[in-house]
Amino acid sequence: MPRFTEFETYDVRFPTSLELDGSDAMNADPDYSAAYLILRTDAGDGLEGHGFAFTIGRGNDVQTAAIEALRDHVLGLDVDATLDDLGGFWKSLVHDSQLRWLGPEKGVMHMAIGAVVNAVWDLAAKRAGVPLWKLLADLTPEQIVDLVDFRYLTDALTREEALEILRKAEPGRAERETQLRERGYPAYTTTPGWLGYDDAKLVRLCHEAVADGFTQIKLKVGANLDDDIRRMRLAREAVGPDIRIAIDANQRWDVADAITWINALKPYDVWWVEEPTSPDDILGHAAIAKAIAPTKVATGEHVQNRVVFKQFLQADALSVLQIDSARVAGVNENIAILLLAAKFGVPVCPHAGGVGLCELVQHLSMFDLIAVSGSSDNRVIEYVDHLHEHFLDPVTIEDGHYVAPGRPGFSAELNAETLAGYRFPGGKIWTELKEEGK
Amino acid sequence: MPRFTEFETYDVRFPTSLELDGSDAMNADPDYSAAYLILRTDAGDGLEGHGFAFTIGRGNDVQTAAIEALRDHVLGLDVDATLDDLGGFWKSLVHDSQLRWLGPEKGVMHMAIGAVVNAVWDLAAKRAGVPLWKLLADLTPEQIVDLVDFRYLTDALTREEALEILRKAEPGRAERETQLRERGYPAYTTTPGWLGYDDAKLVRLCHEAVADGFTQIKLKVGANLDDDIRRMRLAREAVGPDIRIAIDANQRWDVADAITWINALKPYDVWWVEEPTSPDDILGHAAIAKAIAPTKVATGEHVQNRVVFKQFLQADALSVLQIDSARVAGVNENIAILLLAAKFGVPVCPHAGGVGLCELVQHLSMFDLIAVSGSSDNRVIEYVDHLHEHFLDPVTIEDGHYVAPGRPGFSAELNAETLAGYRFPGGKIWTELKEEGK
Repeated sequence: MPRFTEFETYDVRFPTSLELDGSDAMNADPDYSAAYLILRTDAGDGLEGHGFAFTIGRGNDVQTAAIEALRDHVLGLDVDATLDDLGGFWKSLVHDSQLRWLGPEKGVMHMAIGAVVNAVWDLAAKRAGVPLWKLLADLTPEQIVDLVDFRYLTDALTREEALEILRKAEPGRAERETQLRERGYPAYTTTPGWLGYDDAKLVRLCHEAVADGFTQIKLKVGANLDDDIRRMRLAREAVGPDIRIAIDANQRWDVADAITWINALKPYDVWWVEEPTSPDDILGHAAIAKAIAPTKVATGEHVQNRVVFKQFLQADALSVLQIDSARVAGVNENIAILLLAAKFGVPVCPHAGGVGLCELVQHLSMFDLIAVSGSSDNRVIEYVDHLHEHFLDPVTIEDGHYVAPGRPGFSAELNAETLAGYRFPGGKIWTELKEEGK
Repeated sequence: MPRFTEFETYDVRFPTSLELDGSDAMNADPDYSAAYLILRTDAGDGLEGHGFAFTIGRGNDVQTAAIEALRDHVLGLDVDATLDDLGGFWKSLVHDSQLRWLGPEKGVMHMAIGAVVNAVWDLAAKRAGVPLWKLLADLTPEQIVDLVDFRYLTDALTREEALEILRKAEPGRAERETQLRERGYPAYTTTPGWLGYDDAKLVRLCHEAVADGFTQIKLKVGANLDDDIRRMRLAREAVGPDIRIAIDANQRWDVADAITWINALKPYDVWWVEEPTSPDDILGHAAIAKAIAPTKVATGEHVQNRVVFKQFLQADALSVLQIDSARVAGVNENIAILLLAAKFGVPVCPHAGGVGLCELVQHLSMFDLIAVSGSSDNRVIEYVDHLHEHFLDPVTIEDGHYVAPGRPGFSAELNAETLAGYRFPGGKIWTELKEEGK
């Protein structure tokens, strides 16, 4: 009877602040980082589960300590029994009667649970010999709802309603899987739009995005309105009228400011505005959504859990829902959120980028397409072309689409060399930077 | 020019789970704990700032690590300049562009900021030679609003509106301070109502509460409806018709269950129901509030920040607002919340208990009475009679009222012996328990 025998954590950081990749109105100088976990068993098959929480630098040590706090919840568990009841495993972490005080279900501790849950799913897919999206897409509706904790959701979505949604999607699964394998899943690119880039770089990257087959791009906004108007105009001229341009304020505004600012950019045809204000402000988003319609409100990368997503949907506070693979408590909670979005008929367009977020979240959108919403209409996964080279199974983009991964697992695994070299503060990269005085 | 020179953290835990004090429907076996901080300076006056985050056991190490992550934000700062601009100091912690990814403004990292901010306020009050409530109550309206970050609040409360509230309260300050010194601040007691107590102990403690001068008690509910009906009946018989009985479900229910359960207890006259569902579920609380009126909904001990409190008020989702001294980012954020409550005309009845929460939060209610809401009508501070003996300046309760503290500071300081003995895992108490096999 194999058991979990090793639980190894790493504080991994990339010095991205040196390049201003990833700069936006709230995140001036991020060092993209991962609080990283490797799980090992004594099954003798050599398979490991990899998972991580994403942070942007300082505090990645705290995030790593939070994952460490779950060590005793995992070590010694029967691997087969755990994988057979991943819904129960999720609850054993999220509802720990002492740890839940640290949230409940939010922030550092909740992201730590996400890292552990995702690592176990990585192992599950590797043991099944399939990519995670395929493992999930082949589950029965009953198996899928067993993964979900409906606590606090039942005023919006019951287990029975979730089953109905999943059963309705069952007949078309095979056809959509074939489509997915042939065409991939639509992507959009944020690469042109970082605030730290000058106008010439913005325009050049806009042209490249169109040439690469993307039908949507995104610009960071919110630091200076005149700059934003100029950048939006340049981008619109560069991509032409048929390419969608989304904007992303990264929580910069209060409600009234958001409405003024967004309306000033409307002449350039804004597809969605992302994170116009605090991610906690459901009612604020609802007020903004009403005032800027038909421009859409998108949010989710900082939405802490399924209970807050539920309310965003109940309040008509978003019309594009952006799941994040490493913000909530892992695959199980994202399935709950996909089901909520399907219930409310709202498209899911995941947040990605950072470290490995593209690698992870593609699996969830592909599962959604096959088994939950049954559609990729008006759905795109964010794509940012940073740091993929550090992953063993990096995403592949072809003609503006994510190619369905074929390798078993959750595509979560960093190269061994990267794990060692970027470990903070002792890894080779950081030692060299320190010597150079940066 | 004195500077902050020492930043010392302690993981302090009390083995309260052995007694079932503090047992409720969601927290079966808490070990009340503090992630504790001592700040020292080179001013040569021997004064220290003490602050802490409260947790209930596992994860207190993570909480302590989060406080440690703020070390470099404090060490080396000019003490006078920091104390002269505590609004700016607050922003320098909360808006750290990398750390905010770990929330933003929620959970472990936000509570850590609360501990640091409160420790600095403890020092400020000691240097001023007055208790914190007095220090705050003597600030001008302009000085008070300078402490508050109005970001994300302006759709409900602007700086100008806050100033108006404070100016309106100014003329009565002296009279209310005299009243406070004479009569104290009303308290209610949770001591009788823990779920782990048997009926005889419940009834005995109810009688004692009335004899001690309390006019309100609180019962934990939510584990079993039949038990709750029986316990509520016994409590009502014991205290008579004139004592208010609140109930506390500690987040146990979904929306529909909450409504059914609360209505079943109504025949025994429920004053308020506390935490009926997820603390993140503003719209759920609003639905419950509507369905159980005129029974009041109370919440706040797990409400993560001022943005969520703002929405609870906007949505009529609570009619009793329960601030907690150690959940949000310290004194400054609680002032914002007191101002929001005053704007909406909702009474603040703080959550307390745990480790030192009574000691801290009394200062905030006393400040509110004198300088913000100007009233203690329908306002009571929770009182739980645990662990006060570990504090240097424990609360004093007389005839059901908190006596205004007179000692300089924030009453936050644990005895040196406690700090050493309860340190986890190496302190004397924990070493002994380990030897006894507990």
